[in-house]
Amino acid sequence: MASLLITGGRVLLPDMSVTQADVLVDQDSGSIVEIGSDLTAEKTLQASNSLVTPGFVNGHSHVPMVLLRGYADDKPLDRWLEEDIWPAESKMTPDDVHIGAKLGLLEMIKSGVTGFADMFFHVPKIVDAVDQAGVRARLGHGIVTTGKGDENAFADVKESLDFALEYDGAANGRISTAFMPHSLVTVGSEYLDDFVPKARAAGIPIHYHANETLNEVTPIVEDYGVRPLDYAADHGMLESQDFVAHGVHVDEHEINLLAEAGTSVIHCPASNMKLASGMAPIQRMRDAGVEIGLGTDGAAANNDLSLLDEGRDAAMLGKLAADDAGAVPAELVVEMMTQGSASALGFHSGVIKEGEPADLAVIDLEKPHLTPQHDLVSHLAYAAVGSDVKHTICDGQILMRDREVLTLGEKSIVDQAQQTADLLLSRVSS
Amino acid sequence: MASLLITGGRVLLPDMSVTQADVLVDQDSGSIVEIGSDLTAEKTLQASNSLVTPGFVNGHSHVPMVLLRGYADDKPLDRWLEEDIWPAESKMTPDDVHIGAKLGLLEMIKSGVTGFADMFFHVPKIVDAVDQAGVRARLGHGIVTTGKGDENAFADVKESLDFALEYDGAANGRISTAFMPHSLVTVGSEYLDDFVPKARAAGIPIHYHANETLNEVTPIVEDYGVRPLDYAADHGMLESQDFVAHGVHVDEHEINLLAEAGTSVIHCPASNMKLASGMAPIQRMRDAGVEIGLGTDGAAANNDLSLLDEGRDAAMLGKLAADDAGAVPAELVVEMMTQGSASALGFHSGVIKEGEPADLAVIDLEKPHLTPQHDLVSHLAYAAVGSDVKHTICDGQILMRDREVLTLGEKSIVDQAQQTADLLLSRVSS
Repeated sequence: MASLLITGGRVLLPDMSVTQADVLVDQDSGSIVEIGSDLTAEKTLQASNSLVTPGFVNGHSHVPMVLLRGYADDKPLDRWLEEDIWPAESKMTPDDVHIGAKLGLLEMIKSGVTGFADMFFHVPKIVDAVDQAGVRARLGHGIVTTGKGDENAFADVKESLDFALEYDGAANGRISTAFMPHSLVTVGSEYLDDFVPKARAAGIPIHYHANETLNEVTPIVEDYGVRPLDYAADHGMLESQDFVAHGVHVDEHEINLLAEAGTSVIHCPASNMKLASGMAPIQRMRDAGVEIGLGTDGAAANNDLSLLDEGRDAAMLGKLAADDAGAVPAELVVEMMTQGSASALGFHSGVIKEGEPADLAVIDLEKPHLTPQHDLVSHLAYAAVGSDVKHTICDGQILMRDREVLTLGEKSIVDQAQQTADLLLSRVSS
Repeated sequence: MASLLITGGRVLLPDMSVTQADVLVDQDSGSIVEIGSDLTAEKTLQASNSLVTPGFVNGHSHVPMVLLRGYADDKPLDRWLEEDIWPAESKMTPDDVHIGAKLGLLEMIKSGVTGFADMFFHVPKIVDAVDQAGVRARLGHGIVTTGKGDENAFADVKESLDFALEYDGAANGRISTAFMPHSLVTVGSEYLDDFVPKARAAGIPIHYHANETLNEVTPIVEDYGVRPLDYAADHGMLESQDFVAHGVHVDEHEINLLAEAGTSVIHCPASNMKLASGMAPIQRMRDAGVEIGLGTDGAAANNDLSLLDEGRDAAMLGKLAADDAGAVPAELVVEMMTQGSASALGFHSGVIKEGEPADLAVIDLEKPHLTPQHDLVSHLAYAAVGSDVKHTICDGQILMRDREVLTLGEKSIVDQAQQTADLLLSRVSS
């Protein structure tokens, strides 16, 4: 077998303990073969003074929106969407999505992200970028039917299912798909009733925004007399393979619904703060048995795609939401960034364990801001940043070595993305 | 004159606009001489593809606490102080404080911080570290009299004033001092009445924690029948040169008191979130005319000393506190990180302007996570991290060039700090 030894590092184990060990990877199968000492392999990757962690998994994003990073900040969600984001997105071409996806993938690989979920449009272009970049992804076409005529609405819903059916298993199995209604208030129930059973029959999971703001809750309560997640369950969208983004405004009944259904919540703390959406009750959901992952949301609402940043935000906001400094402790944060998101997305990654996928990040610990090293799990949650990641490995392949991304050309993508973003905004303002 | 030209960059001006320009520095006086083009100097510092910003000013910290970074997280403030922080601090020797200060200074210089305020003990050791590091600082000995006998209490208060009088103007004027009662509930009023007038008579400003948690508010309201900032004013501690940390639980009356007195508030969003202290009403204070700076607090409650991280936290938390995504916009964040903190601490830095101190940070913009560059003020507030800082300049001297700190030995300090922290904790547990 083609083998790779990650050598000299400390390794974060699934129980959140840390041990000095080498990690042997079978590059043909993409799996971890052994965690131990005195191992040999064809190639080695140096991890001395470093922490080997599971690769981080970004559970909810709209990656090509990196092109709009810093374009419009400091506005409430509705005005921000209507005045800035939607007009700009409407001008995005497939080529824009392609370069935006590459830029976002570069940023994610450079911050140790080895897998992500994405909801966007022109998604085959994202497939192509993911194939080249080498990460794992669950991708889908985001559906909006409100404000569209029947024909366009139907075409949009159909595109989401068609994409999911066609591309599931692409990039040697690194790409999986989902059926992705944008939210419960932006997709008509007749379309859900028509298409959700088709996705379910094909084994395709469903991903959507749920209870992000009160504007997503109130209309459903008023129109249907039930809470949004009751409405979701009534339309067959609350199964164990499904995952929802946000879950900010959920009540106790909905928390229990999520726990019983086994539907995961992807927590997006930075976006929830930046758009003043509110504070998701993460510790309460967790205590009730809800599985929680972590996501950055789009860069326009964040403004980065680093899961390490997001983990810190999750710890901070979780304590404030619970009015308890003991809530959302470092171990839970790291679990959300790795196992939690991975499990939500149906990936087998997220833990460093023999037989599991070799999706890994190697963090350089020899930094003033990571000194002293009393507790490396605390450092992951609170002190490490994306630029501390030294190597990124996915599916057994080295995607970044010593901060150089091997699968994507950094300089040319950065230059192209700047040009593309400038042209996009000139089309928006013209 | 010994001159330095920072060349090829874009420059952030005091009105938050950005212009392509070179910055000419007189290294003898430590001042900015000219901002323009076609300038020449003896030495140059390359800033192409970079943003030249005022150096960031950390308005409130306990820098040597970096030795306890990650030692105790996820606990409420009272238990955290009593079970972990105070026992560890009580074992800190002058040498521990010295190496802790150097480690923290290294971290701050590496993230573009050129000035800070610090409240700690064994402060002459911090003076020594600041002198070597080359940054600007306002330092003080933190006083606690509760739980101490009269003699020890008096000695502690006296030490704070004596330190302030002796070291004001040290390190060629880069060091100034303050009289620093820890808080309004941990220092007896008799000591305030005795010593505050003496500090005031000597022109020494006063810095203390105010209204950080409800536990600091309730006892004063109950015992004295006034709000804490009324109590502070009654004891002569609310003047325009004074600055208070936190200001989380302030009411409208206290906001007006602060505005009228011209006393600055140092906002510490990360600490306030991590310890679940609450949400300071930053936008409301700002609208009332209160001057706001930004501080990291100690690393044990953060867990880093990067003002760029803190700025992002301030934007996020400020919106949540105001329930308004338009609150605490990027411009205000950057102002707090620079002019706001500098002004609170009585530094003349914080703006890039002819005649002002050359305290500068140069941010490398050629990064995927800082692409595209629609709005560089947004990038400073939301997307840039400490490791994006390429050069740090204070008082006209280059403290860091191309990420190498010139005034402190990084490797040896990191190694020594790790050993020192390990020994400290072994003394705590024995």
